[in-house]
Amino acid sequence: MAASKGIATINGVFKGKDIISLNQFSQKDLMLLFSYVPEMKKIATSQTPSKLLEGTITTLLFYEPSSRTFGSFNASVKRLGGQTVDIINPQQFSSVVKGETLEDTVRVFEAYSNAIVIRHPEKGAAAIAASYCKEIPVINAGDGIGEHPTQALLDLYTLYDTFGRLDNLTGLLAGDALNSRTIHSLAAGLSLFKKTTVYILSPDILKFPKDLLVSLRKKGLKIIEITDETDIPKTCNFWYWTRVQKERFSSVKEYEKVKSQFVVTPLLMKKYANKDMILMDPLPRVKTIDTRLDRDPRSVYLRSQIRNGMYIRMALLGLVLGRL
Amino acid sequence: MAASKGIATINGVFKGKDIISLNQFSQKDLMLLFSYVPEMKKIATSQTPSKLLEGTITTLLFYEPSSRTFGSFNASVKRLGGQTVDIINPQQFSSVVKGETLEDTVRVFEAYSNAIVIRHPEKGAAAIAASYCKEIPVINAGDGIGEHPTQALLDLYTLYDTFGRLDNLTGLLAGDALNSRTIHSLAAGLSLFKKTTVYILSPDILKFPKDLLVSLRKKGLKIIEITDETDIPKTCNFWYWTRVQKERFSSVKEYEKVKSQFVVTPLLMKKYANKDMILMDPLPRVKTIDTRLDRDPRSVYLRSQIRNGMYIRMALLGLVLGRL
Amino acid sequence: MAASKGIATINGVFKGKDIISLNQFSQKDLMLLFSYVPEMKKIATSQTPSKLLEGTITTLLFYEPSSRTFGSFNASVKRLGGQTVDIINPQQFSSVVKGETLEDTVRVFEAYSNAIVIRHPEKGAAAIAASYCKEIPVINAGDGIGEHPTQALLDLYTLYDTFGRLDNLTGLLAGDALNSRTIHSLAAGLSLFKKTTVYILSPDILKFPKDLLVSLRKKGLKIIEITDETDIPKTCNFWYWTRVQKERFSSVKEYEKVKSQFVVTPLLMKKYANKDMILMDPLPRVKTIDTRLDRDPRSVYLRSQIRNGMYIRMALLGLVLGRL
Repeated sequence: MAASKGIATINGVFKGKDIISLNQFSQKDLMLLFSYVPEMKKIATSQTPSKLLEGTITTLLFYEPSSRTFGSFNASVKRLGGQTVDIINPQQFSSVVKGETLEDTVRVFEAYSNAIVIRHPEKGAAAIAASYCKEIPVINAGDGIGEHPTQALLDLYTLYDTFGRLDNLTGLLAGDALNSRTIHSLAAGLSLFKKTTVYILSPDILKFPKDLLVSLRKKGLKIIEITDETDIPKTCNFWYWTRVQKERFSSVKEYEKVKSQFVVTPLLMKKYANKDMILMDPLPRVKTIDTRLDRDPRSVYLRSQIRNGMYIRMALLGLVLGRL
Repeated sequence: MAASKGIATINGVFKGKDIISLNQFSQKDLMLLFSYVPEMKKIATSQTPSKLLEGTITTLLFYEPSSRTFGSFNASVKRLGGQTVDIINPQQFSSVVKGETLEDTVRVFEAYSNAIVIRHPEKGAAAIAASYCKEIPVINAGDGIGEHPTQALLDLYTLYDTFGRLDNLTGLLAGDALNSRTIHSLAAGLSLFKKTTVYILSPDILKFPKDLLVSLRKKGLKIIEITDETDIPKTCNFWYWTRVQKERFSSVKEYEKVKSQFVVTPLLMKKYANKDMILMDPLPRVKTIDTRLDRDPRSVYLRSQIRNGMYIRMALLGLVLGRL
Repeated sequence: MAASKGIATINGVFKGKDIISLNQFSQKDLMLLFSYVPEMKKIATSQTPSKLLEGTITTLLFYEPSSRTFGSFNASVKRLGGQTVDIINPQQFSSVVKGETLEDTVRVFEAYSNAIVIRHPEKGAAAIAASYCKEIPVINAGDGIGEHPTQALLDLYTLYDTFGRLDNLTGLLAGDALNSRTIHSLAAGLSLFKKTTVYILSPDILKFPKDLLVSLRKKGLKIIEITDETDIPKTCNFWYWTRVQKERFSSVKEYEKVKSQFVVTPLLMKKYANKDMILMDPLPRVKTIDTRLDRDPRSVYLRSQIRNGMYIRMALLGLVLGRL
């Protein structure tokens, strides 16, 4: 599938496609993918042995730590009766030590498996891997500050599953709007739908990238940038909270000034969140959400968000492997 | 299963229970568990593909090294047709690096799997993990100086399998009686049975904990503390040997003084062991048993003890997952 | 299988045998093994779920990094419906930290599994492991500068598959002829066949070992040592290229002098390679072959060589486990 690699649009056909970026998806493609989720959920929760991926091997090629994403893909494959070959930190563990290139590594695992899921610390690595892998699909499980499409897909599905729609939604994206790939991808996904508004709350130095802002507005997404929590409207259907990392700031002082504003507390929820909204977090949740909110029924980050991640990945694997 | 978590007694019902401590087991529970072992042995040795755990995923969440326990649980799941998600050193490999708490990690893997087996260097970690995991059973695979219940279960089963009973036994527990969780758990297990005597051989500074001694005696276990190998009675049905670690001693001199006494040699066996006894060791065997004894038919540490570990874990997994 | 361990010849019977060295194979044994490859290829490429190894567990006990060999064995087992227990770096991860010997480790995994594949940095480790493992077969996946028999088997099969024979071949073995275990094993394998000639191109200080040269010549293999690329005859059926490692040289200057000679370039191929030859490399390919040659149809190192590795390992596992 060399020709259609990298940035090929899905256009209704998942079989054999690489999944590198959310930009490959149209509104219709999302809905097609989502339509398989209930079946996946049924398989996962009934413990009925599924044979959907029987006889297939998926290599999980993880060049950097991520136990959640690794576990989610791993379980997704096995819930469908497939097998995995787990390669963690090949740069330490393998020939990469001796200087093997990404190309050679990918081509070796292409020969052993039916699909490759790759995680890599460098932006663009997944697309490069896909360009070398001509016979089997490659799925991007996060490439540094690049993309993490399956995270965006599960976020979008969680909204869709909760509200029954992806248009006519208002959301809050908070935290490191400059660097968070999950914020960028989620906004990009929402831009495919009509009458959607996102408020972006971030410190001044971590504002949403200008070029992305312009391009998403052009697509019709209404974006309103705010810098103070008191500007959060009570109409939000969802809050999507990400970390503000200390190391992004030039001084500790500057960091201390803003950090408390970027923690969701019961008080903040009481003041600005309505009763039907949902509170999301891509995890790991490191002081972004007060643990007292874990029992709030609106908190979905340790519940449906995680589970939807597995269902979405099951559906995606079934589709790109041509078994759905 | 929140309500029945942590220290819930088995009381004849394994399904859905967490297995955190040997204290959860009554004499009857042990016998119930043991009754499934012959079937498990048959499955494991016949290579007949079993479908008992088909459609289930068990996450092996190992926060510290233990290739034997990891391998034993891994093989146990797979012998029964189940699948594992292997997470080794999540604190290095995963989001834990970024500061994710044990709670969040456990809840994530709860969403992906049907059971979690946890190994952790800190005492109490398994019970804490279980308290967060409300929907699936958690099995303690060793939590620091806390407990390692499946080790105790396999030790007890090995005695039961050899002698046809767990009452009316006399045993020797040797080595670091102060810190060895395997000695503590085995003694606790034996205290459930009548007319059982244990001799505890240890250096003065590594004596059996006073409070545990008192409580087990109250339950009817006869405990006799000795500090010299010449006090070992020839009536022992079993010797259970553990390591005396150098770092427990305040001076090298003091360590050197006692260490030779805590190695089983052919001569020691000749002097004090009867012909029907068995020699046990929880492994790793690091200078605790002279390798010349490996071929002695009474040595079970590299034979039935290891194999029984797999059978017991198979039975336990089958029971807590409600498949037996 | 204690009695027949280590260096037991195959002699037409694979079942239960340890596979430690290419020296165990006769010409007939190679042909018997090769005869199963087409069936294995069919299973691997059709994605038909095979049940050949159903109900079996193979422990992959890797004491040193090798993602390719690990992945190849892992996929081989799973393509045939078997399961693996993956133990990577047990010296860090496991009881080996606490000082457990290779013997104890091997005997523990013997109890859990139906076969052990061992990779170890020390020469002779695989044979030692096999001598301890009395009940199940052990396969050497590379023991330092010792042997890597499955690599030699896949190399020989690749030649056989290409030319329909292993006699009457002329080949070039280039690079570190002194230390490369793959060169040694391939030459040993070829020595079983008639009218075979190998040219060995290496720097003076990395010449083929004298004793091996003598013994293989005695078996009938024609060996011609050359030190300059201009001596490569155009009649070679294959080129087999290995790395010349900088650290083998006493001075950087000496290394710089020879290194350019040990890279295959399009120009070198144009000058000395005929149109029907194949270009092989055991990988990792670290500046041994110019990447411009990757698209040359004669380059098999990232194509059939890799795939044949999986098929050969599938056949070997099926045979030693008595399922073929």
